[in-house]
Amino acid sequence: MLEKTGRTVDYCREDNSLVILDQTLLPNTVRELHLKNADEIVEAIKSLRLRGAPCIGVSAAIALSVLANDSKQTEPEAFKREFLKNCEIITSARPTAVNLFWAAEEMKKAFDSCFEKGVDAVKAELAKRAEEILEDDIARCRSIGRHGAELLKGKHSFLTHCNAGRLACVKYGTALAPVYFLKEQGEEVRVYADETRPLLQGARLTAYELTEAGIDTTVICDNMASYVMKNGLVDAVITGADRIAANGDAANKIGTSSLAVLAKYYKLPFYICAPFSTVDFNCESGESIKIEMRDEAEISEKWYSQRMTPKNVKCLNPAFDVTDASLITAFITERGVFAPSELKNEE
Amino acid sequence: MLEKTGRTVDYCREDNSLVILDQTLLPNTVRELHLKNADEIVEAIKSLRLRGAPCIGVSAAIALSVLANDSKQTEPEAFKREFLKNCEIITSARPTAVNLFWAAEEMKKAFDSCFEKGVDAVKAELAKRAEEILEDDIARCRSIGRHGAELLKGKHSFLTHCNAGRLACVKYGTALAPVYFLKEQGEEVRVYADETRPLLQGARLTAYELTEAGIDTTVICDNMASYVMKNGLVDAVITGADRIAANGDAANKIGTSSLAVLAKYYKLPFYICAPFSTVDFNCESGESIKIEMRDEAEISEKWYSQRMTPKNVKCLNPAFDVTDASLITAFITERGVFAPSELKNEE
Repeated sequence: MLEKTGRTVDYCREDNSLVILDQTLLPNTVRELHLKNADEIVEAIKSLRLRGAPCIGVSAAIALSVLANDSKQTEPEAFKREFLKNCEIITSARPTAVNLFWAAEEMKKAFDSCFEKGVDAVKAELAKRAEEILEDDIARCRSIGRHGAELLKGKHSFLTHCNAGRLACVKYGTALAPVYFLKEQGEEVRVYADETRPLLQGARLTAYELTEAGIDTTVICDNMASYVMKNGLVDAVITGADRIAANGDAANKIGTSSLAVLAKYYKLPFYICAPFSTVDFNCESGESIKIEMRDEAEISEKWYSQRMTPKNVKCLNPAFDVTDASLITAFITERGVFAPSELKNEE
Repeated sequence: MLEKTGRTVDYCREDNSLVILDQTLLPNTVRELHLKNADEIVEAIKSLRLRGAPCIGVSAAIALSVLANDSKQTEPEAFKREFLKNCEIITSARPTAVNLFWAAEEMKKAFDSCFEKGVDAVKAELAKRAEEILEDDIARCRSIGRHGAELLKGKHSFLTHCNAGRLACVKYGTALAPVYFLKEQGEEVRVYADETRPLLQGARLTAYELTEAGIDTTVICDNMASYVMKNGLVDAVITGADRIAANGDAANKIGTSSLAVLAKYYKLPFYICAPFSTVDFNCESGESIKIEMRDEAEISEKWYSQRMTPKNVKCLNPAFDVTDASLITAFITERGVFAPSELKNEE
């Protein structure tokens, strides 16, 4: 199903399932999973078979509709108790994922709006809302792609970091949306993908989705970005963002700020593509963004056939870094393109 | 033997062998090898059990003395033919290693200087010259350490890249020599070591030798250097160099130029430590330095339990990059400390 629609997740009405691509198996194995019960769905979120904030949000909405359809309850109050229990189960799968809670809240509103009309009407409404959330994500990414393609027209080679592509969303992605758009318009495009240590999202996921789409892709180690820029191999840098402060400072995958500093030195534009909801107006500047520290073993052991650092040595593993607003050429959002200083006017 | 002397290679007169630490097994296994014949020595160089330009040069000199001692020839001309054949065998083990050829030439000069005095005198002279070359390397690195420690006094935390420590030389190393010197002087020192993809010399070798020496060491992924600098965790960056142009541009392990750009942005000093012989006055600027491209599999497969990039995706794997002279605060050499523009005066 996903191969036909080019989506990362989907709602299969035929067998009433949440359809996902198992991202833990990429790039070596492409496996589509049809998840039908709460246990399977929770396991998929916990084990990162599903990843990427937008993708997780959309999946939660579909999951809640799938589980409601499957309900044997005919009595409205019992049906509602079961639905709320499912909301709790799904959101507890990854308590730090804001999009999970957002999706559950949207589905609760849909539930309440039809509660008076009975169980079947609620089921229909939940399905409708889940599909809207799915379509909205696609439209939002498409809009980022359209604004980005307009801005980037005439540029052909891009450096990106981590995975902010369709695998993190439903289709198009954020940072990669302009690339897909330019390709659709018949432009010649090339992408250099940082492998993105320690979790290798660039090597595994970005490289996978771009080559699947027929886009000329080259993986480099993160420390090769300076070489690539110095030797004129790229025209611009494009990444996603996890959180954007009101002053335009942006938190994203560790290593992003390094690319922004390099881009400035080599006089290349540095763009961040993100849905406008990523801007947190309650967050004044990047200084107040707390950085998640992850397990040292991701650096010393993960992926390897043996440990690669001495046993008694420490590893520091910050998952994100903050890029100064002054290094960001522009934000590309579904609402249009903004300089960092212009974000405040859009509050 | 090496554990006692703290050396990476040594000359064992008791069993007439070249003693090395097998670097392919680090950091998990520490194994000292006593190499006694040409086959073993060539294999050790080819398989990178021995690595680092100075270390390879010193090892070649010792190897040629060991093989000469072992000779059954009593007739001077036959003894010389055998020696020249050994020079050829050793230098052909890694034809791009300039230090191998330099060491062989030095040993040939020593051979010729005593040829008239007979086979035993030549054997004694070769052993003396090999030990001189070994001691010279230690003295040169010690001198780099002394000049560096003077310059860096008052700084406590350093970021380094790749391995330019004792494992690449005999003792002290180049970039790490000032760190060892400061430690000897009772200064508090800390090192952040870039893991240095794709070959992980930082994670495997730098982390090993520093922790062995009791120095507080933290391994980071290459893309975390910006985070470490931005958060004030380091006072300076120190690396080695493979080749320095007359104008002060310097080629070193891929990723070095990225650190230099970041250091400039974060207003931190960036130092290169190297023996003065690394300056190539025939090379006007970094533009004429040809960069070795290595096998894509080093990025996609090496160390991993399975391939980490899609099969049909390219990887770009430059082994070195060139850092602009304008980004280098100073060169620390055995002759003293020089600004990039001062190198020319020392020709």
